[in-house]
Amino acid sequence: MTQSVRSDLDIAEELAEAARAAILPHFRHPGLLADNKLDAGFDPVTVADRAAEQAMRDVLARHRPEDGIWGEELGRTEGSSGRVWVLDPIDGTRGFISGTPTWGVLIALSHENGPILGVIDQPYIGERFVGQNGRATVTGPQGHGTLATRPTAALADAILFTTFPEVGTAEDGAGFRAVSEQVRLTRYGMDCYAYALLAAGQVDLVIEAGLNAYDIQAPIAVIEAAGGVVTDWRGGSAHLGGRVLAAANPVLHVAALDILSRY
Amino acid sequence: MTQSVRSDLDIAEELAEAARAAILPHFRHPGLLADNKLDAGFDPVTVADRAAEQAMRDVLARHRPEDGIWGEELGRTEGSSGRVWVLDPIDGTRGFISGTPTWGVLIALSHENGPILGVIDQPYIGERFVGQNGRATVTGPQGHGTLATRPTAALADAILFTTFPEVGTAEDGAGFRAVSEQVRLTRYGMDCYAYALLAAGQVDLVIEAGLNAYDIQAPIAVIEAAGGVVTDWRGGSAHLGGRVLAAANPVLHVAALDILSRY
Repeated sequence: MTQSVRSDLDIAEELAEAARAAILPHFRHPGLLADNKLDAGFDPVTVADRAAEQAMRDVLARHRPEDGIWGEELGRTEGSSGRVWVLDPIDGTRGFISGTPTWGVLIALSHENGPILGVIDQPYIGERFVGQNGRATVTGPQGHGTLATRPTAALADAILFTTFPEVGTAEDGAGFRAVSEQVRLTRYGMDCYAYALLAAGQVDLVIEAGLNAYDIQAPIAVIEAAGGVVTDWRGGSAHLGGRVLAAANPVLHVAALDILSRY
Repeated sequence: MTQSVRSDLDIAEELAEAARAAILPHFRHPGLLADNKLDAGFDPVTVADRAAEQAMRDVLARHRPEDGIWGEELGRTEGSSGRVWVLDPIDGTRGFISGTPTWGVLIALSHENGPILGVIDQPYIGERFVGQNGRATVTGPQGHGTLATRPTAALADAILFTTFPEVGTAEDGAGFRAVSEQVRLTRYGMDCYAYALLAAGQVDLVIEAGLNAYDIQAPIAVIEAAGGVVTDWRGGSAHLGGRVLAAANPVLHVAALDILSRY
């Protein structure tokens, strides 16, 4: 098969497979003790993180040498196409070192206006969420299906997720709590998996702060393809990270933005 | 096969299979919208919860009619053997309605001195943690293996989990935070899965409050079989729930108990 007939989606799937193969041997490995990492000068999370990014870079070197790469571990590589693959090999390293199944591999393809394709992959569960061109899908333990966000219109009916109750700076935390006080249920600790659940129509809001571009570009592509809205806390682009509001639909997005924009 | 040759472990596995089959059709079902549950008078979590407990009761009626049953949904059924099966068909209903993969089916077999066999099952991942007679195992995406807690001795090296940052009453929360301030990392939101991670040697402490017996008996059996220690915040039995401290080993247990016993 020549390069020209492999779609961007094919490449994204191959990247996710390469990352899975590089990471899983390190997950829940007995050597992954939080308390011996620094003593031994050896950090299995970093080893897995770098191995996965290198494996993905090798795939791109073969199939998309003209595209740029922006990776969490190995930095930026310029391309000539105007397109950039934005990679976070292990999003949620604290979840990873704790053995939880809610960290993920994040893969986005972006051009100047932001991400146009995104993958959130959870290797341990064997579950992959993909979004492109207004179509979002999941493949996992329950088979293959289409994703759609849900129509929850009122904050009082919404389920809200974030990773840490601290949520960034004191001001960030105050904004988060102002929304949290209005919703039906607030939950913590899901890392990037919370964005996948939003795309899958299971939760309604994810609010975070202090993100990097590689933390959010893949979630943006998956959520937008499933019908959701992702912006910063002022309603502008969230492509470069910072404070992020992801909502299941435009109505709920406005309701949460009305509160967050005061912070 | 006659009743006499089916071991308690065989029965526990059959209970877990019955619960999986009853629950999974309801998990991430599009009808499971948090915002229509009360309006429609129909709660898919409760439907799944009750169906799973009834399916497990049917197994016990066939194979262990002499044993008692204490179920979260359908209450207590007296037996004649002095043994009781303690069942929580869906531990972590808030995680369940949010689509997370961290709720679980909890199954324990107890006699007067507490649980002697325990199962923590996560049906969506297809992962089962079992403990009995000093032997704990996991069967899941990475195959079958033996579980052992880890030797972390100092709070400063420990990873601590709890489900909600609120953690019970104000006094309960103060005790939790007093330990949390001493540890390396605190994480939230894993429901019963946190106890499985402790048994699996991935995390070091789980501290909770306001638990029921059926929330904790299965985790006690799995963790003790893997080398850990589970008590209340005074060092006494946690079999009936309440405030619970689970630790990876006796040394770390003493360190955490020294703080919690002041609250």
